Amino acid sequence: MSMTLNVGLVQQPAWPDKDKSLTESERGIRALAERGAELVLLQELHATQYFCQTEDTAVFDLAEPLDGPTTTRLATLARELNLVIVGSIFERRAPGLYHNTAVVLDRDKGLVGTYRKMHIPDDPGFYEKFYFTPGDAGQGAGRGFAPIETSVGKLGVLVCWDQWYPEAARLMALAGADVLLYPTAIGWDPSDDDAEKSRQKEAWTLIQRSHAVANGLPVIVANRVGHEADPSGTSEGIRFWGGSFIAGPQGELLAHGDTETAHLLVSIDRSRSESVRRIWPYLRDRRIDAYSDLTERYLDRR
Amino acid sequence: MSMTLNVGLVQQPAWPDKDKSLTESERGIRALAERGAELVLLQELHATQYFCQTEDTAVFDLAEPLDGPTTTRLATLARELNLVIVGSIFERRAPGLYHNTAVVLDRDKGLVGTYRKMHIPDDPGFYEKFYFTPGDAGQGAGRGFAPIETSVGKLGVLVCWDQWYPEAARLMALAGADVLLYPTAIGWDPSDDDAEKSRQKEAWTLIQRSHAVANGLPVIVANRVGHEADPSGTSEGIRFWGGSFIAGPQGELLAHGDTETAHLLVSIDRSRSESVRRIWPYLRDRRIDAYSDLTERYLDRR
Repeated sequence: MSMTLNVGLVQQPAWPDKDKSLTESERGIRALAERGAELVLLQELHATQYFCQTEDTAVFDLAEPLDGPTTTRLATLARELNLVIVGSIFERRAPGLYHNTAVVLDRDKGLVGTYRKMHIPDDPGFYEKFYFTPGDAGQGAGRGFAPIETSVGKLGVLVCWDQWYPEAARLMALAGADVLLYPTAIGWDPSDDDAEKSRQKEAWTLIQRSHAVANGLPVIVANRVGHEADPSGTSEGIRFWGGSFIAGPQGELLAHGDTETAHLLVSIDRSRSESVRRIWPYLRDRRIDAYSDLTERYLDRR
Repeated sequence: MSMTLNVGLVQQPAWPDKDKSLTESERGIRALAERGAELVLLQELHATQYFCQTEDTAVFDLAEPLDGPTTTRLATLARELNLVIVGSIFERRAPGLYHNTAVVLDRDKGLVGTYRKMHIPDDPGFYEKFYFTPGDAGQGAGRGFAPIETSVGKLGVLVCWDQWYPEAARLMALAGADVLLYPTAIGWDPSDDDAEKSRQKEAWTLIQRSHAVANGLPVIVANRVGHEADPSGTSEGIRFWGGSFIAGPQGELLAHGDTETAHLLVSIDRSRSESVRRIWPYLRDRRIDAYSDLTERYLDRR
């Protein structure tokens, strides 16, 4: 394996039409491949608009099985361009059982792994608990916080809301992830004031950079852009804030997007993770004898 | 309890002479008290220079029992000024058994709690494993990651190297901490280049701001300033980088110091933590059924 890894990401708007959205993703992937990308991350649920602004049973029609048309199209592209693509689908696992699932397509090997979003948010405009069953706990393919083996290394793929949980990043690092990836769909409520908007975007950036720091790993984050209206008309919709970025293992920003379409590419030096972990050896000193309460909901009255 | 809390911190240089260093701390505490501080954080091991640049058995003479002169002096000041002081001492628990211990002095109640640094670093210039036994695991006074009850709330006091561990901050939050505090002694190796220095200080700031974000809590960090020579003469010593700060529960910077002496004061709105946790309810969605591997050292071959 080469000591450098060319990682890219596509930040884009999306449309109700899957073909139109996927064609735009494909344009980005091809552009990045021409620049030498070996790994490309797409944003969360990139094939459609972010449909969780309302709760509507008809929306389940958008879901696909793991080997559905979106995965198939990405697999074809990964094979043709000889690279690894991390995509994100609305997965139909069974009637009445749906997940928010990342799919990893590895060159000519097709689908080599999946990650089902473990932490599911639910707040006004982001009604995900209606649509997505949380990923299964436990060990084995597609369960828990397991990195996915690929030709470019072990990918610690997490999804959006997971990004706020240091536990998720740590578990991926402990399981040997070489890089952390976060497909995301996050934006502003247009009715919030500018100070609140600024605090939210800054908090979102720094929590994910902090996972790089805490674990000595590069972090890649792809978020969507554009305004998407609320189908119910009860809110002003969501202004997706973009701000996708690639950070090195000290949390240093190597590339970042703004609020427009962006195709980011960075050549990551794989040896940096080990050298950073040598000067900041956090894994050496974890107090695993004193962490058992991390599996508690809350420590009442202590 | 008032809905605001005036928190302050003292960022200062230190001298080999304890009286001189403590007199400078006292000057800062008095200045902050005059401005209305109810809680003041001092930096790590503030009574002396940072003595871990070399391994020298004679240095153990600097250690004090929990009721030693440094704690006594701070308790007297807390009583006189009617505020809470979080200090940091080199604790002599028994001959041959020493800790890096935070002490909390609460108005007229004296010493109301201690925290013994749980994560102990060791790298060139920071030979802490020679001097400090890690704090005990388990529950009870002065054990593990337990917030300290005071007249101004439950203080999640951690120390320096702990700041790099999301686990420590999370455990304090789960145990009901109202605020996280980090007395610190960190600086640059003068032989590092400017880019590395910048990455290190930025990583240090953002990892601690991330604990505010992940837990919806204010964070107070006090670091020392000034250059301290290496007594062995084998290195260029340490240039302590200051940069102490107070952040709100979205990680937003409310006040920060530079590389000189600083007395920072911020009036924290206690209701903000709850309102932030309502819009970002991370505690609601933790996957405690899938976190058990956090007590593992490493997940080999998964």
